[in-house]
Amino acid sequence: MNKHGGYYGKNADTIIDFSVNINPLGISQRVIDYLTKSLNNLNKYPEINSRSSCKYISEKLGLKENEVILGNGAIELIYLYAMAIKPQKVMIIQPTFNEYERAVKLAGSEIIHFKRKEQDKFKLDIDSLVYELKKYKPDILIICNPNNPTGGLMEKKDLISILEVLEQLDSTLFLDESFIDFAPENSLHQLINIYPIFIIKSMTKYYAVPGIRLGYGIGNQEIIKKMNKYKIPWSVNSLAAGIVPIVMEDSNYHNKTMTWYRNEREYMGRELRKIDKITLYPSCANFYLIKIHEDIDLKGELLKRGIFIRDCTDFYGLNEKYYRIALKGHKDNIKLIKELRDILL
Amino acid sequence: MNKHGGYYGKNADTIIDFSVNINPLGISQRVIDYLTKSLNNLNKYPEINSRSSCKYISEKLGLKENEVILGNGAIELIYLYAMAIKPQKVMIIQPTFNEYERAVKLAGSEIIHFKRKEQDKFKLDIDSLVYELKKYKPDILIICNPNNPTGGLMEKKDLISILEVLEQLDSTLFLDESFIDFAPENSLHQLINIYPIFIIKSMTKYYAVPGIRLGYGIGNQEIIKKMNKYKIPWSVNSLAAGIVPIVMEDSNYHNKTMTWYRNEREYMGRELRKIDKITLYPSCANFYLIKIHEDIDLKGELLKRGIFIRDCTDFYGLNEKYYRIALKGHKDNIKLIKELRDILL
Repeated sequence: MNKHGGYYGKNADTIIDFSVNINPLGISQRVIDYLTKSLNNLNKYPEINSRSSCKYISEKLGLKENEVILGNGAIELIYLYAMAIKPQKVMIIQPTFNEYERAVKLAGSEIIHFKRKEQDKFKLDIDSLVYELKKYKPDILIICNPNNPTGGLMEKKDLISILEVLEQLDSTLFLDESFIDFAPENSLHQLINIYPIFIIKSMTKYYAVPGIRLGYGIGNQEIIKKMNKYKIPWSVNSLAAGIVPIVMEDSNYHNKTMTWYRNEREYMGRELRKIDKITLYPSCANFYLIKIHEDIDLKGELLKRGIFIRDCTDFYGLNEKYYRIALKGHKDNIKLIKELRDILL
Repeated sequence: MNKHGGYYGKNADTIIDFSVNINPLGISQRVIDYLTKSLNNLNKYPEINSRSSCKYISEKLGLKENEVILGNGAIELIYLYAMAIKPQKVMIIQPTFNEYERAVKLAGSEIIHFKRKEQDKFKLDIDSLVYELKKYKPDILIICNPNNPTGGLMEKKDLISILEVLEQLDSTLFLDESFIDFAPENSLHQLINIYPIFIIKSMTKYYAVPGIRLGYGIGNQEIIKKMNKYKIPWSVNSLAAGIVPIVMEDSNYHNKTMTWYRNEREYMGRELRKIDKITLYPSCANFYLIKIHEDIDLKGELLKRGIFIRDCTDFYGLNEKYYRIALKGHKDNIKLIKELRDILL
C-alpha cells in the first residue's frame, strides 16, 4: 500500500493534523441528523448499484442517469476504471496523487510520467505535453485538477486544447476533479459527450466525511457501461449513498465553506509568502505545497509542537524539501504560522 | 449485474421480505449506540487497510494479524481474491451464490461447474467430486458452506478429505462460510496453515447490518499478502471497521439469535414439510430452499398477499419451480405458512 496523509500516532486527539485535505468546518448537522435517523435502516442492503444516487446526481448536473457511477470513495473509481478499460499505455502528469499509478500498474498498463517542472512553479507546460502526447500516443492521460499535491489549477481552455489532441489520438482524459469545488473554474462534466473524458470526484473532502467513503464518476454511456460490467455489487454502503442529496442540497454549508476557504487561503498564502525560507506554489485547492530552503526536519520539528504536516517524499519528482499543508480553521492556521516562524526565522 | 434478493418495489415498508437472509432480530442496540457515538468521527479517514479490525479478529480467532483481511462486505473479497490469484481454471459447486462465477469470469478464469443433484437433495457427492477434481485439476475449488441457496451443510471430515485431494493437485479451496454461525459445525479457520484454503465470511447477515458492508477473509500469510497487493485503499468505511469488536463481543445478541434460529428453523421445517406440493431440502442456514410441484407463479401470488420471496431462476441448475425462503420472526413465519397453505392446499 502507498503512504498517505493522516496522523495515526499517539496523542491523535491533541495533534493538529494538517496532512489531510478535509474541510475543517466538519460534518454538517444536516448530515449528522440524516445519518442518525438512518442507522436503523442498516438492516437492509444498499441498492446493488446505487441507482437512486446516480439518478439524483445526474439530474443535479443535467446529465443522464447512465452517465453517472457512484463509488466507495472516488478511489474505487480509479481502480475500477483501470480494470475496466485496461489501457495499454497511460501518461500521468506528475507529481500527483500516487494511487493513479498503482491502479493502472495493477491493470498491467505501461506508464509514462510527464513532469510539471519546479522552475515553472509546477504549472503544466501545454506545448511540451502536446508534443509528448503525439510522440507516445498513450491510451489514457491522467490529470488531477486542481492538482494534488501542488494545488495548481488548469484553465478550461487549456484542458480543451488537450482534449482536442487526445481526440485526434483516439485517447481519453481521466480527470480527477476532487478539489474543483474550491476553484474558480467549473467542472468539465458538460463535455462528456463532446470530448473523450471521464471525470471522478471525491465527495468526502469537501463535505468532511472521508470515513463514510463516497465519490462519483461521470462519463459517456459507453464508459459507464464498461465500468458497471466490472463493478463490485453493493460497493457503496447505504449511509454514503443516502447522504448524496443531503450534501448536494446544503447551500448553507457550501456558503460557509467558501467563506472559510477564501479567508484562510488568503491568510495562509500571505503569511507563508512572508517566510523567506519557504517557496510557496500557487494553489486553487484547500492546501498549499511548500518547499523549504533549509536542511531541517520540518515535519519532526512541528510534531514536537503538536502539529502534523504531510511530507512529499512519496510523490514522483518531489523530495524531503517539500511539504503539503492543508488549510484548517483560523486558530489552527495561526498556530502553524507562529510555529513555522519560530522554527524558520 | 446479477439478480439478487431484496424487495425494492412500491410499498417496501409493508411488504414482508423473505428474499434476503438477514437476521430478523435486527440491529443490536449496542451497535446502534456505537454508531451514533461514532458519526462525529466520520471526518477522519478510516485506516487505509483496516489493520486494527484485522488484529482484533485474528486475536479473537487465535490467528496472526497478517492472516486476516477485512472487506467492504465479503463480496469485495470474492472479487479481490479472483483478481489477486487470477486462477486459470475454477470449479464451482452448483447451484450456489452466483457472484463467484462473475468474479472469476472477470479475472479471466475458465469455469467448470460441478452439480449437486436434486435427487440427492442437493447433498454433495464427494466421490464423484473427487473424480472430477482429479480429471480437471482446477486451480481453485469454490464451495459455500452452508450452501446458498440450498442450505445444506458439509461435514468437516468431508471437507478435509476434499482438502487432501486439493493439496495433492496443488489446488486451493475457496470456502464461503457466511452462514456457518447458524450451523452445528465449526469454521475451518484453524486449518489455514495445514491445508490450502482461503475462507470468507460475511458479518452483516448474522448481525443484521448489510447496509454497512462488512466481511472478512482468512488465509495463510502468502494469500493475504497477495490480496493486499491488489486491495483498494480505505475500502472498508470507519463505521463498518469500528463495529467489528462490538458485534463479536455481543454474546447476548448471539444467544438470542441462536434461540430464535433453532425455534424458527424447526417451526418452518415442520410446517413446510406438511405441505404436499412442496419439497423441502435440509438446511443448516437461516433459509430454506423449496420446490413447488404445481404450475403456479408462487412469487406473484404471495406478493399479492404482501409477501416477497426469492425465485431461483438465476441460480445454475435451478428453475422457476424453486424458491429460497429466509427465516423471519415468528409472526411473519406464521403468516407465510398460512398464505402458502391458502395458495397450495
